[in-house]
Amino acid sequence: MTQIVRTIHEVRGFVSDCRRKGWKTGFVPTMGAFHAGHLSLIRQARRECDSVIVSIFVNPLQFSAGEDYDQYPRQLDRDLRMAESEKADILFCPEVAEMYPKGFDTYIDQSDGGLPSKLCGRFRPGHFRGVMTVVCKLFNMVRPDVAYFGQKDYQQYLIIRRMTIDLNLDVDVRVHPTVREEDGVAMSSRNIYLGPKQRKDAGCLHQALRRAEEMVSNGESSAARVTSEMKRVINRVKGARIDYIAVVNSETLEPLKEIKGKTLIALAVRIGKARLIDNALV
Amino acid sequence: MTQIVRTIHEVRGFVSDCRRKGWKTGFVPTMGAFHAGHLSLIRQARRECDSVIVSIFVNPLQFSAGEDYDQYPRQLDRDLRMAESEKADILFCPEVAEMYPKGFDTYIDQSDGGLPSKLCGRFRPGHFRGVMTVVCKLFNMVRPDVAYFGQKDYQQYLIIRRMTIDLNLDVDVRVHPTVREEDGVAMSSRNIYLGPKQRKDAGCLHQALRRAEEMVSNGESSAARVTSEMKRVINRVKGARIDYIAVVNSETLEPLKEIKGKTLIALAVRIGKARLIDNALV
Repeated sequence: MTQIVRTIHEVRGFVSDCRRKGWKTGFVPTMGAFHAGHLSLIRQARRECDSVIVSIFVNPLQFSAGEDYDQYPRQLDRDLRMAESEKADILFCPEVAEMYPKGFDTYIDQSDGGLPSKLCGRFRPGHFRGVMTVVCKLFNMVRPDVAYFGQKDYQQYLIIRRMTIDLNLDVDVRVHPTVREEDGVAMSSRNIYLGPKQRKDAGCLHQALRRAEEMVSNGESSAARVTSEMKRVINRVKGARIDYIAVVNSETLEPLKEIKGKTLIALAVRIGKARLIDNALV
Repeated sequence: MTQIVRTIHEVRGFVSDCRRKGWKTGFVPTMGAFHAGHLSLIRQARRECDSVIVSIFVNPLQFSAGEDYDQYPRQLDRDLRMAESEKADILFCPEVAEMYPKGFDTYIDQSDGGLPSKLCGRFRPGHFRGVMTVVCKLFNMVRPDVAYFGQKDYQQYLIIRRMTIDLNLDVDVRVHPTVREEDGVAMSSRNIYLGPKQRKDAGCLHQALRRAEEMVSNGESSAARVTSEMKRVINRVKGARIDYIAVVNSETLEPLKEIKGKTLIALAVRIGKARLIDNALV
């Protein structure tokens, strides 16, 4: 039975009990609207830990004005059943008023020019500051041994790993592979915004990445040629607007001219109301 | 016996042992160069907790360019003997390279217009960001039950209390009265910068505060009249340069026109190379 917990006090109580028993706690922080990607993170936590806590919190601090905070899908009953199917112990759903009570005024950030200013950060000012702040809070509430993040949000994973090391949070931050639909589209709660035609068009992100991987495995090392080919693939879709296509060092997110060593190829594309992201490590 | 601990790993080991025994841990973060004020914090921790950890770390992040980071007094042998006299269990002295290793890039701050932008924050840009960041790190390393701060740095106490609540750090942050020399001068590691004549002049901060307290207890409620009288007291000292004299709400640090409710009267004055601060709650 997955138990819904609403307050910080209750979640702390549960975790204290686990710690007393010497149990290892796995944590999957989410914004809800579960898909197979979330479930795969929960499953991994279940495999590796003694207790599994999943949080659902649509964090207002990581949405900019004009983004989809109000429309973001909220479907707790469905999420609860799905968490139950993966044997999560706790579904922690705090209220906004408890996360950010009156007078709240402390934020976590990284420097201008640091990881949060790259890739998606250029298009979503303040987004990663909001992510870091809420994840730090959640880590302090839940005190997990291990936390799980999806590779689709690879930049988020890098930023949280950096924060966790820098602030001496005693959490092992792990990244888990992106789960995809049959046609290759990365699972995302925001895919719900896509109409049938747009849903089909969304395949272009994955196609562009596969094309890039193919080029690299055939010996192409010019980031410019890979990027321009990916651009061509995306631009075949009418109405797809590219935020960025980037070939970067997979640790620093610094742009590369030549593809060598661990490289992240990442892109963000707007289709209709949805802003879609995807990436590949090559 | 007070044990010197140099690494985060060792201090974590000690605290884990204490937690296993169900002990309450008290923590006194300092920059060393102990005086009776530090000792009174350690003594309070000893009274209220089962184990007492004192840290010494001259935190480069909270000094601006042109401030006294390089000159700040460092006297570990003397500090160790003093900590021993108050029966501290651990003197935790991490190296800069372990606190801020290569790649470090995560900072904690409060908003423009928030607590860190008031009073001393106007004269020491970035100071409280550095304080918050290091205290959050130390709290995460030591995981104390209670942490002790001196009232002389009242703004620092308010900011750390705010941060601790906002980031859900499970630490009880307490403030302890300022300890004074016989002539009323607040104990400070920076008093060492004062020559004999300047040391005598430094009494003007305390004199101004006593004059303010006297006025308030005689029914004066105009912040302007109190401030102007304090200014007069300070300006009798040749070479005393006022950074600020402020009459503010003791929770928000917002300026008050009328003294009512819990009020903080605070001032910062430069005498020679030293920047001295002091305050009173009325």
